[in-house]
Amino acid sequence: MKTAAALKGERMEFGEVAARRRSVRRFKPDPVDRETVIKLLECATSAPSAGNAQPWRFLVIGDGAMRQQLARAAFNQNWMAQAPLIIVVLADLDRAASSYGRRGMELYALQDTAAATQNLLLAAADAGLGACWVGAFSEADVSKLLGLPERFRPVAMVPLGMPAGNPAAKPRRLPLDEVVFFTD
Amino acid sequence: MKTAAALKGERMEFGEVAARRRSVRRFKPDPVDRETVIKLLECATSAPSAGNAQPWRFLVIGDGAMRQQLARAAFNQNWMAQAPLIIVVLADLDRAASSYGRRGMELYALQDTAAATQNLLLAAADAGLGACWVGAFSEADVSKLLGLPERFRPVAMVPLGMPAGNPAAKPRRLPLDEVVFFTD
Repeated sequence: MKTAAALKGERMEFGEVAARRRSVRRFKPDPVDRETVIKLLECATSAPSAGNAQPWRFLVIGDGAMRQQLARAAFNQNWMAQAPLIIVVLADLDRAASSYGRRGMELYALQDTAAATQNLLLAAADAGLGACWVGAFSEADVSKLLGLPERFRPVAMVPLGMPAGNPAAKPRRLPLDEVVFFTD
Repeated sequence: MKTAAALKGERMEFGEVAARRRSVRRFKPDPVDRETVIKLLECATSAPSAGNAQPWRFLVIGDGAMRQQLARAAFNQNWMAQAPLIIVVLADLDRAASSYGRRGMELYALQDTAAATQNLLLAAADAGLGACWVGAFSEADVSKLLGLPERFRPVAMVPLGMPAGNPAAKPRRLPLDEVVFFTD
């Protein structure tokens, strides 16, 4: 996962950061220090949001028993619990709805938290850390485990740590001319 | 919008790219060459997606009359039409649903396209270009203008071009300790 550039402390061009980001699912047990987590979450929260509502919250879970329970709530993706941290991304539905009603809850809150999550993943890759966007989980189970008030919807979980072993290959993308269309 | 580093052709650290990205709403009329647009969209499509479904499509709109119509469909955000290009981001609902049913359509397709859109905005900022995530528009009007098949939902519009004038200040973020919670 650590690129030659990251190892040397050099700066990567953004395109390189985006291209090298992987979904990392194997982690070393080494802890991630809080200063680094805060730097990553500063990047996350620099994402844009509709009307600057910032309808995002981040729960940083270090406790091992809770990480195991979250992994179970993600349909037994037990690899998640290996990561020293799991960051649970929440959408604040009340905040989104108060400005934009149903479109705020059902679209903007999901997009804004997704943009922040993507920033988090990119910042992790840039720092030589491994992370993975987990979307498949029981929202009810995660909410119950974490005792979330109803206004907070868990929308993503991001296990985070030092990558172990060789990174899996980045899954192949569709050819650009199958997804991009120029109109003139 | 162009940072000193970008002007000198130097590379920015990711955190700097994320921090400097702005919502740019004033543009010079200068065209953006296709090679640059393709590079930005390669960054966009390097985002992750649930099951690597890549349920995103990008329509690159250069035609001036269409840009004006799209701006009108965005509740008369006429500044949008000043940009030489508007990139319309579509979610392929059939593709998302075929793997993940309703959760695919209503969550993953929105998150995946949002992650790709965020990559696009960051790549634009890194290249010294201006862009803005527009989410407020009539989906029905945009679909009709572009003749979209029902399976494609327009989820964002991104006017793109050389920024004009001084960039607006980045709207203030909530203090990090109001949105981030450590559990141990």
